[in-house]
Amino acid sequence: MMDIFLSEVMGTGMLTLLGCGVVANVILPKTKGFNSGWVVITFGWGLAVFAGVYVAYKSGAHLNPAVTFGLAASGGDLFGGNEELGIAAVPSTFGNILTYLAGEMVGAFLGAVLAFLTYKRHFDQEAPGATKLAVFSTGPELRSYGWNFVTEVIGTFVLVFVILLFGPSPSGLGPLAVALLVVGIGMSLGGPTGYAINPARDLGPRIAHAVLPIRGKGKSDWGYAWVPVVGPIVGGVLGGLLGGAVS
Amino acid sequence: MMDIFLSEVMGTGMLTLLGCGVVANVILPKTKGFNSGWVVITFGWGLAVFAGVYVAYKSGAHLNPAVTFGLAASGGDLFGGNEELGIAAVPSTFGNILTYLAGEMVGAFLGAVLAFLTYKRHFDQEAPGATKLAVFSTGPELRSYGWNFVTEVIGTFVLVFVILLFGPSPSGLGPLAVALLVVGIGMSLGGPTGYAINPARDLGPRIAHAVLPIRGKGKSDWGYAWVPVVGPIVGGVLGGLLGGAVS
Amino acid sequence: MMDIFLSEVMGTGMLTLLGCGVVANVILPKTKGFNSGWVVITFGWGLAVFAGVYVAYKSGAHLNPAVTFGLAASGGDLFGGNEELGIAAVPSTFGNILTYLAGEMVGAFLGAVLAFLTYKRHFDQEAPGATKLAVFSTGPELRSYGWNFVTEVIGTFVLVFVILLFGPSPSGLGPLAVALLVVGIGMSLGGPTGYAINPARDLGPRIAHAVLPIRGKGKSDWGYAWVPVVGPIVGGVLGGLLGGAVS
Amino acid sequence: MMDIFLSEVMGTGMLTLLGCGVVANVILPKTKGFNSGWVVITFGWGLAVFAGVYVAYKSGAHLNPAVTFGLAASGGDLFGGNEELGIAAVPSTFGNILTYLAGEMVGAFLGAVLAFLTYKRHFDQEAPGATKLAVFSTGPELRSYGWNFVTEVIGTFVLVFVILLFGPSPSGLGPLAVALLVVGIGMSLGGPTGYAINPARDLGPRIAHAVLPIRGKGKSDWGYAWVPVVGPIVGGVLGGLLGGAVS
Repeated sequence: MMDIFLSEVMGTGMLTLLGCGVVANVILPKTKGFNSGWVVITFGWGLAVFAGVYVAYKSGAHLNPAVTFGLAASGGDLFGGNEELGIAAVPSTFGNILTYLAGEMVGAFLGAVLAFLTYKRHFDQEAPGATKLAVFSTGPELRSYGWNFVTEVIGTFVLVFVILLFGPSPSGLGPLAVALLVVGIGMSLGGPTGYAINPARDLGPRIAHAVLPIRGKGKSDWGYAWVPVVGPIVGGVLGGLLGGAVS
Repeated sequence: MMDIFLSEVMGTGMLTLLGCGVVANVILPKTKGFNSGWVVITFGWGLAVFAGVYVAYKSGAHLNPAVTFGLAASGGDLFGGNEELGIAAVPSTFGNILTYLAGEMVGAFLGAVLAFLTYKRHFDQEAPGATKLAVFSTGPELRSYGWNFVTEVIGTFVLVFVILLFGPSPSGLGPLAVALLVVGIGMSLGGPTGYAINPARDLGPRIAHAVLPIRGKGKSDWGYAWVPVVGPIVGGVLGGLLGGAVS
Repeated sequence: MMDIFLSEVMGTGMLTLLGCGVVANVILPKTKGFNSGWVVITFGWGLAVFAGVYVAYKSGAHLNPAVTFGLAASGGDLFGGNEELGIAAVPSTFGNILTYLAGEMVGAFLGAVLAFLTYKRHFDQEAPGATKLAVFSTGPELRSYGWNFVTEVIGTFVLVFVILLFGPSPSGLGPLAVALLVVGIGMSLGGPTGYAINPARDLGPRIAHAVLPIRGKGKSDWGYAWVPVVGPIVGGVLGGLLGGAVS
Repeated sequence: MMDIFLSEVMGTGMLTLLGCGVVANVILPKTKGFNSGWVVITFGWGLAVFAGVYVAYKSGAHLNPAVTFGLAASGGDLFGGNEELGIAAVPSTFGNILTYLAGEMVGAFLGAVLAFLTYKRHFDQEAPGATKLAVFSTGPELRSYGWNFVTEVIGTFVLVFVILLFGPSPSGLGPLAVALLVVGIGMSLGGPTGYAINPARDLGPRIAHAVLPIRGKGKSDWGYAWVPVVGPIVGGVLGGLLGGAVS
């Protein structure tokens, strides 16, 4: 269980280091990637998943509570294991689910801290508080808790449903398949809310934003924080249920 | 046959959810991807195909009547089946062709509805009717039914012809090969008409546009609607005939 | 030999249809991809190679006289054949080399004609003659035959040299590996001359430009035409010699 | 040992030819890719790695002293060898490490010279000295040796750590996996310093800048030169230590 915990810490940490990092590069002042746009954001997050999946190979690389809940809902194991590497399967028990969730949250927090250190001098520049928060957590372009929730449910449904359907058509792409799926979800469904599609990816960095000594930071927008947590969990469970039935 | 129908519904639904979604993100007001351009459009549609192909693995993932007609014209089965998964081949009978077409149309309609829900609050914003229609269906930059038709024929010919030639050179890329082909067709041949290259992708969402309660929507441009239906069918049949002869 | 000829005609035709097509989309007036920039140009040409390589599987998909000369210079066969498909190897004889060259040139011409038809109404718009020519053939940003020649030699050297080194490290990417290599060469070495790196890709469409009834077309710039022919041949032979020695 | 040296010379030369080339294309005056932005820079460098890895297959393609030091720190061989090709493993001896470093430095220098020749006429144009230097070597957007150092440590840590974790999850992507990792690091962590993450990639071209007859060139910024050398070595060793423990 410690192996699973540490694996998810490292993998989710890699995810938010690179993911928060790419947002910092695009929106913080005086970076080389300033204003380089949505292509960089979506590929950056996709490749953050790519790296994170390799890192968390010992636990099947959930990196995301919505995936953990979705797999539990699908009726299968949390991780099928890997015979070649001598890693046992991980059944969907309450204790195992908690272990995954804990690793994901801790990792997401730590990765955001590393992204902060990478861009420390750029956080020191003048910029609106909302910009500095956006490096860490998602926020809607048009605030409407109901519709924002719908958007996060649909996005995460696609993520978990399609991941479960990778099984029957193994393509040999490995982590790249998940990465490309995340690029696609970002491009297609990320427009309204910035596609959290992952409670840990949003909540862990939001906590980091709240506790880190960021120059001129504003509020952490806790009023919105439940949307990118509950929406992805609902979407992930729906995706897991349908994906489990279809695959 | 119900398996094939549902598989094509889900796969084509994924295709138009993500495909109409990416257009919404790029052209509707106040999205995060607003004005992010042709790279996002083409990769977004390509990755929509990528996800849709995984989803429709039980039916060989046509997702497109032009592919269905093209495969029938090529002289082979509509789907070779999958021995490992115990899925039988699907011969080119009239009933099977109708089943594919029905699934594709229903799925394309439903996916467009989901894209509408994902971007509901952005559809509520002020925007020209033509912009809101463009999320659903293609339209030409320079209206000329004859030449627009030629463009759709050539684009769809490339799609079906090259897909049939994936067979002899299996690359292990699986759904990614089709996705990249669609990205390439979009970048290279999509300039004049927006590359429907798929009657269901255009007609299903156009019907959704006609029936959905979209704020301030304009006409559904039925005068043009035959071009992205007939052009792709002709191109697909030509691609199937030549592809069947060459492969 | 007719098989090889037709295979190269179809593959190189696919290459210039999609390749000239992407340039048309980016630079001709009133296209959907107008002004979408270097990312679209380079990925468009890379994916044109991707599709062309699948199409020309019966001849090993040279699509490029520089590759034909480079393989001849490397000391190996022009095509190793494919046992699974029952295709015999093609030795480097004078007749076989001529067959490849003829197929490449005819295909490159025909593909450019198809690209013209795809964008016919956009060619009918007002635009400088140099813009219309640029859809077909390359031209230097700073005219200097000597240095333009050096640039084409280096770019084509990289193409042929690295293709020969795909052999020892098979990655299972198949045609995608060549496509990505061409994307990389375009991004990195295409700045001065537009990276012909292929005599047929430049000369075939230039002939098409000379003979097609293009509205308001200017000169075909025959003064420059030798650079993208001789440069790539020299670079290809150098790449073939070194690649043959190293692999 | 000569095989290893030459292999790293050619591979690292390919890396800096294409890598410095893409920067030249984006920032030098009057190129076709002028001002095409961060997507081109990051994909261009990623594909430079892609090509370089194929070229240096005889030595395992370090192309980077940080990788050499990282592998030594990880406790494994510098190169596992390749049984199929009859290439023996390369143990982590002092002499072998020096051989790799020498090849990397010489190759990085030569590749930069070739990039200079490719863009010779564009270097002849008027442009600030800092722009011309930026084709060769990295520089920080906000100069702060301490934080710039931190950024380079974190970026190179990610590079070496994830490369070591490619082992347990072989994806069949081969060189593409490393290329995509480098694209991701550039997008996510390259904003502050331009991600040298490779002492040879920075120092070799900086020496080339110092000795080449570049029109209107300025200083080579030797005051900053230690950061992209020492930072990557520290990050690489940390990545090698943790990667060796986890994989």
